Amino acid sequence: MNTMDFRFNLVATDDYARAGLLQTPHGEIPTPIFMPVGTQATVKAASPRDLHDLGARIILANTYHLYLRPGDERIARLGGLHHFMGWDGPILTDSGGYQVFSLSQRREIDADGVTFRSHIDGSEHRFTPEKVIAIQQNLGADIIVCLDECAVPDDYEYNVEALARTHTWAKRCKAAKTRGDQALFGIVQGGVFPDLREQSAHFLTEVGFDGYAIGGLSVGETKEEMHGMLEVLDPLLPADQPRYLMGVGTPADLVECVARGVDMFDCVLPTRMARNDSALTRDPGPDPSRPGRINLRNARFADDPAPLEPGCTCYACAHFSRAYVRHLVKANEILGHHLLTLHNLHLMLTIAREIREAILEGRFQAYRETFWRRADE
Amino acid sequence: MNTMDFRFNLVATDDYARAGLLQTPHGEIPTPIFMPVGTQATVKAASPRDLHDLGARIILANTYHLYLRPGDERIARLGGLHHFMGWDGPILTDSGGYQVFSLSQRREIDADGVTFRSHIDGSEHRFTPEKVIAIQQNLGADIIVCLDECAVPDDYEYNVEALARTHTWAKRCKAAKTRGDQALFGIVQGGVFPDLREQSAHFLTEVGFDGYAIGGLSVGETKEEMHGMLEVLDPLLPADQPRYLMGVGTPADLVECVARGVDMFDCVLPTRMARNDSALTRDPGPDPSRPGRINLRNARFADDPAPLEPGCTCYACAHFSRAYVRHLVKANEILGHHLLTLHNLHLMLTIAREIREAILEGRFQAYRETFWRRADE
Repeated sequence: MNTMDFRFNLVATDDYARAGLLQTPHGEIPTPIFMPVGTQATVKAASPRDLHDLGARIILANTYHLYLRPGDERIARLGGLHHFMGWDGPILTDSGGYQVFSLSQRREIDADGVTFRSHIDGSEHRFTPEKVIAIQQNLGADIIVCLDECAVPDDYEYNVEALARTHTWAKRCKAAKTRGDQALFGIVQGGVFPDLREQSAHFLTEVGFDGYAIGGLSVGETKEEMHGMLEVLDPLLPADQPRYLMGVGTPADLVECVARGVDMFDCVLPTRMARNDSALTRDPGPDPSRPGRINLRNARFADDPAPLEPGCTCYACAHFSRAYVRHLVKANEILGHHLLTLHNLHLMLTIAREIREAILEGRFQAYRETFWRRADE
Repeated sequence: MNTMDFRFNLVATDDYARAGLLQTPHGEIPTPIFMPVGTQATVKAASPRDLHDLGARIILANTYHLYLRPGDERIARLGGLHHFMGWDGPILTDSGGYQVFSLSQRREIDADGVTFRSHIDGSEHRFTPEKVIAIQQNLGADIIVCLDECAVPDDYEYNVEALARTHTWAKRCKAAKTRGDQALFGIVQGGVFPDLREQSAHFLTEVGFDGYAIGGLSVGETKEEMHGMLEVLDPLLPADQPRYLMGVGTPADLVECVARGVDMFDCVLPTRMARNDSALTRDPGPDPSRPGRINLRNARFADDPAPLEPGCTCYACAHFSRAYVRHLVKANEILGHHLLTLHNLHLMLTIAREIREAILEGRFQAYRETFWRRADE
């Protein structure tokens, strides 16, 4: 690979859990890591200053959105995505594939790529592997990924077809990449089918990438199915390279997927929950498929002087009551979403940090047990 | 007065311009000062941390809004407004009068007070002088004001009637006040009529208050009329007490009203402009009745790498381009309004600081001339 500034060192392991250090041109990332999502070149309701204060070490931006608005060529002219959005830490961009399949209108897939209409203005566009790499090179993120096709998880025939395209596109993406200061991740697909996941891991590691994203999970399958796929992949993916589970997840997902060999996570959950007036909590809750949360619109918080989550050290919890945040969300004040966003991101970033410390100190299983014990209280 | 923690010292004068220090239970306020408006117990799109970073020394909150939601008694139970909103600096609350006259539905005024319907849910409420003081005592701001009636500025007969009520209510407000840690300001009314303004100043200074608010201006009259009223009032208001011009104004208003003896200002302009996608600029513009501004929705900023206002040192201008802020407002991202809010508040607070320094150094007239010279460039 011609990615001189990119290095991954596995620092410690604890059973399948891994603690690493990922070197990028914009700084070092301790793993396991949670990446806040900055879809449109901003993590919703948080400034880069806030993200630094929260201890965010890398953020994700969406290729599909930025290509459509304000345009990747414009961002390149304005000095690249880091400069454009005022974030000097590492950035990962996704391929746009997932958004094309979930957001855009009238998409048509062929062997060469996908034609789709913008969800903003209905205009027609086409993504090919080469195009998606060109866009991501214009954006200039530290880590970029291959164009992939995210199939519904439980349709075997569709997954076979989609996987063939994803693999061909992965080779073309690698060939198209010219910038030496960006790492390229392949994306393992294959739905909930162990043989397809195995085949995908073999193919992509054969081609050879700087790291491996795991796509097509957390899209409707059960937690058991998701965990099963991670267990299939753990021995097949190179131990000395980072693994990134796309679009996952909750605090409990971080714990359980690190326990199955994952290093990197991203999810809109903390920022989206904030926009839905909810604070994430550590309590994994009675249903392990749903994160612990409280909804601040609830009348029971109207006179509650407690912070969003007792014991939390974030700016929101250190200075404001549930009663105040409830007032803000009822009054449609931006500060409400801002404070909930800070709290929710702080929780995800803190749990990732705690997990890493536990792995480094060889007590990850104890941490995991303590985490789940809350659910029984 | 039983307001032991409240003191005003006139530090320097320069013609009619005044530099002072206002001592309150929550800290010292250098005057002239601009007070950001936190209508619903939050300055829109800014956190208390942001306000401290910007150098805000006092903020305003609206009695009418907080009485309706979340309720002044609730705020009192939760420890008062400072604690509730996490702002440990000084706060001024208005009387609610202006909002009743401008926002509420079906208001009916009588000699004893005003009955109105909430703009939120149509419920019926009544403000009397005693009620408005009780609400403001529950909120616990450092500076509170009397209930007044804000008449249309150019109707003499109505102003005569309204002024009689305003004066009676002012006496009742002073008599109703029991807390010793709050300063009470009277509100001078009288529209654009010198004789009524004179009469109001005489009456209120006779009753005696900790400071004097000037109401009923910037509500439709011309700048010349507003300036004329300030010139009438300057020699009539006690030199050793603060004067607060309510709801004013633009950067140019700060310069021109300080030049006519005003110490304190508040206005929703900077935060409202931000919500309308506009950045305030120092340029007073060709029309002195309108502030300089740029609207970031304008296509000409799409590729503009310059900051909102070249030379500005605020967080937004130090880190982001007009092109980025335009992208944010086009994409409906909260960060756009946040950055515009920071810039706009920074400009107003900076101009107030510059004015004070100029007065202290005896060069206010030169500062004023330089300020206006921009308009001719």
